[in-house]
Amino acid sequence: MTDLSFPTSLGTSTAEEIRLLGQDLTADLMGQVGFGELAFWLVTLRRPTPSETRVFEACLVALADHGFTPTAIAARLTYLSAPDSLQGALAAGLLGGGSRFLGVTEDCGAYLHEVLEAAGPDLPTDDAGWDALALRAVTDTRAARRFVPGLGHPVHKERDPRTPVLVAIAEEEGLRGPHLRLFEAIGRVHEQVLGRRLPLNGAGVCGAALADLGLPVEMLRGFALLARAAGLLGQLAEERRRPIGMDAYLAVDRNAVYVDPSGD
Amino acid sequence: MTDLSFPTSLGTSTAEEIRLLGQDLTADLMGQVGFGELAFWLVTLRRPTPSETRVFEACLVALADHGFTPTAIAARLTYLSAPDSLQGALAAGLLGGGSRFLGVTEDCGAYLHEVLEAAGPDLPTDDAGWDALALRAVTDTRAARRFVPGLGHPVHKERDPRTPVLVAIAEEEGLRGPHLRLFEAIGRVHEQVLGRRLPLNGAGVCGAALADLGLPVEMLRGFALLARAAGLLGQLAEERRRPIGMDAYLAVDRNAVYVDPSGD
Amino acid sequence: MTDLSFPTSLGTSTAEEIRLLGQDLTADLMGQVGFGELAFWLVTLRRPTPSETRVFEACLVALADHGFTPTAIAARLTYLSAPDSLQGALAAGLLGGGSRFLGVTEDCGAYLHEVLEAAGPDLPTDDAGWDALALRAVTDTRAARRFVPGLGHPVHKERDPRTPVLVAIAEEEGLRGPHLRLFEAIGRVHEQVLGRRLPLNGAGVCGAALADLGLPVEMLRGFALLARAAGLLGQLAEERRRPIGMDAYLAVDRNAVYVDPSGD
Amino acid sequence: MTDLSFPTSLGTSTAEEIRLLGQDLTADLMGQVGFGELAFWLVTLRRPTPSETRVFEACLVALADHGFTPTAIAARLTYLSAPDSLQGALAAGLLGGGSRFLGVTEDCGAYLHEVLEAAGPDLPTDDAGWDALALRAVTDTRAARRFVPGLGHPVHKERDPRTPVLVAIAEEEGLRGPHLRLFEAIGRVHEQVLGRRLPLNGAGVCGAALADLGLPVEMLRGFALLARAAGLLGQLAEERRRPIGMDAYLAVDRNAVYVDPSGD
Repeated sequence: MTDLSFPTSLGTSTAEEIRLLGQDLTADLMGQVGFGELAFWLVTLRRPTPSETRVFEACLVALADHGFTPTAIAARLTYLSAPDSLQGALAAGLLGGGSRFLGVTEDCGAYLHEVLEAAGPDLPTDDAGWDALALRAVTDTRAARRFVPGLGHPVHKERDPRTPVLVAIAEEEGLRGPHLRLFEAIGRVHEQVLGRRLPLNGAGVCGAALADLGLPVEMLRGFALLARAAGLLGQLAEERRRPIGMDAYLAVDRNAVYVDPSGD
Repeated sequence: MTDLSFPTSLGTSTAEEIRLLGQDLTADLMGQVGFGELAFWLVTLRRPTPSETRVFEACLVALADHGFTPTAIAARLTYLSAPDSLQGALAAGLLGGGSRFLGVTEDCGAYLHEVLEAAGPDLPTDDAGWDALALRAVTDTRAARRFVPGLGHPVHKERDPRTPVLVAIAEEEGLRGPHLRLFEAIGRVHEQVLGRRLPLNGAGVCGAALADLGLPVEMLRGFALLARAAGLLGQLAEERRRPIGMDAYLAVDRNAVYVDPSGD
Repeated sequence: MTDLSFPTSLGTSTAEEIRLLGQDLTADLMGQVGFGELAFWLVTLRRPTPSETRVFEACLVALADHGFTPTAIAARLTYLSAPDSLQGALAAGLLGGGSRFLGVTEDCGAYLHEVLEAAGPDLPTDDAGWDALALRAVTDTRAARRFVPGLGHPVHKERDPRTPVLVAIAEEEGLRGPHLRLFEAIGRVHEQVLGRRLPLNGAGVCGAALADLGLPVEMLRGFALLARAAGLLGQLAEERRRPIGMDAYLAVDRNAVYVDPSGD
Repeated sequence: MTDLSFPTSLGTSTAEEIRLLGQDLTADLMGQVGFGELAFWLVTLRRPTPSETRVFEACLVALADHGFTPTAIAARLTYLSAPDSLQGALAAGLLGGGSRFLGVTEDCGAYLHEVLEAAGPDLPTDDAGWDALALRAVTDTRAARRFVPGLGHPVHKERDPRTPVLVAIAEEEGLRGPHLRLFEAIGRVHEQVLGRRLPLNGAGVCGAALADLGLPVEMLRGFALLARAAGLLGQLAEERRRPIGMDAYLAVDRNAVYVDPSGD
């Protein structure tokens, strides 16, 4: 035990100084680094450029809140039951950030990454090349009876307004990389394989843009969760000001109907 | 039930448009609003000024990560046990954001707020006035056998380096308001009452600065949690790259000693 | 570090043997101890008698599930969003086990305990004595502008059917102790002080009965949580068989109405 | 909205009566049904026989606590940080109940179930037949480069004492069904395929026994979580009496070593 040690590159401190990421927290970071910038740095151990920060924060802004989602309602109901524990309500909301409602960002980034890895180092140089790569990928995915992540949206059935805007921001910042290009190509070609036209959704385009920033694809869900943490704080602040939790609960409970289990 | 409605000022959307905070998400927010700025806006329903954003983000940066805290270790151990659920590990870490390790920010903001409310609208205009108010508050708090939040730190026993830096940033931005001034005065006078000199700690000064931004004191813990969410993502990314969870677990389990319950 | 040790009276094991609570898990516990019995033993470090086990399990059964509570809905919504993580859905449900919906058991047990502690060792010997003690307690509590925990119920406005049944079970088992007697007396006298008659509720009577079993009052919320864990598993199994999460979510989201924040 | 209804077979109530599972809670369940029995009933919607209850509770007892596991330490560290929220500490502990430390029960039950489903309705009638089926399954699993769940244990390298005891209890109760028989056969034959002898572990045998009770394999993790909820309450009660959380935290934090991120 005597020589057991726990290595870290994050926070360390002495009686006089607090260090974070190898920097002096007070001299180098506070007041000089934005919060989104720091989040990027904490995960990657490198400080993002202003362009990277802009694309990164645009993704966080896009993912922060989508109104009365199941996670927002779960957080509000938890706050209703346990108003003494804001952390519990926030945690309950984040626990819905799994495979279904918040997982598309990660799934899409990981899918694009996998296709690019398999394609090797010589990536396409024009749209036709990207289309060919996308066509192969979508064809293979369908053959394996899997879904292509990032396609389709329950509300934005024609077109998700976030997608072109995020592509444009990435382009402005010189960060429209291979993941975004492949994703756009999928948007152009999937109809040939799937037989119907689906929009490239906002969670998916965020996954593509985040992957183009060099963020580890296994952590992409984490950024969606961070964004949602801000959204959930907004939901909980609103629940304090103008509560809907009790009504949401009663909308279910007052309409409960007993079903004889033997008929199940 | 027919006329039941659920009001919100946060996210709403139609098939064509996504709105957040009364803005068009894609036209008005993405690429134009920073993540910290958005978090402030989501909670308060007003967009912060650049000065407010700078002080706000300085607080989030100060609170994001303090190395191997109990919450960071809990998150890493949860990830070790359930690597399939990043959201679970993050939630487990945030659940430690309660009264003790992360609560000082909220407690301090609330304490200062309460003293100021009781003092009425005519606030002191010079240091002598603030010192008198602080002296009364500390005296009353001690008489009630309560602690003054924000005083003392287990590591930074003499001086917490975050405190003067955050005060200076707030001063630069014209946001050194009554909560910070009262907190500083407490730093000057508490020794007269308590008989020993304690540093104004970093969690406390963040509470004071956040309260000066007009943020609701009941939500201050929430901002500490948001900051910590970024820190925990850093911890979990590091746990993937360079795991310490197993060693932390074994450091305890290998040194377990059975105690006969009858002797308890 | 070398001599650091971590004492425990719970689980320990060697390559050959697994011990729990000082017993051989396989020879002494498996197949011979019920699950409720073990839960009691784990918290108190003493094996309950069959009578104590019966009262204890009657409380757990009473607290396990109350249908579509906010916690049950939160668990189901979390499962809807993240079906890959049953533990996350269960945890989200338990996080609602705070001061409001699940806290009455603990609050009531603690309240009765406090009154009994203050009353000293010579407890009343007849109903008149208990009524006098109860009257003083309710009068003092009202004077302090606090609520008497365990009084009143939103649905069972006249009489909570759990209360007389649990008292009768405790009586049968010779475990109708001072906490239950004081609680019953509060039921008889509170109208004199409060001016209206309220039922003794089921969560409260469980708190009284659990306290009479000698369980630590600070842990009573924990037993309510354990009971609810079983109920939430039932809710989640039902959500798999016959989902309502999506409908519950849509019942809120489809009736969302945007409110201009400036009017807040 | 008017005709929206939420069906359930669990808890419902009127002003006079509380019903659960189609029973009158107070007349039919309290004092007459054990807690483990109720948990089984809540998930399956059928009341278990006394034999089923005994096997079921033996599994819960076997799974309740294994000392200073990562989940137990995470719960204690969370309690250290946020002692005001017992539900948060319990939830944090349960969140470690994922694929790795608590998932074997579910994985093993699901694996055995899948092999039996594929084998069709005519199951073996003697040990030789079970061995042949097990040999095919282990061979196929290895060929697919997957692990056979339930084999091996970090501490009980030779033999897990829980396995023969649980098999014996199931045998006594007439509930040693196909999942257990297949699991035992895997114990006999795996060495032929894998080249080394591994013990059948306790988490795995519980998965087999629970599956033999007809419990849905997708919910098996849930029973492990319920069992662990009792164990975690024991851990948290012990943390109150004899805290180790601070020492566990310091054992890590005092041995933190900063690593330059550029070397990562």
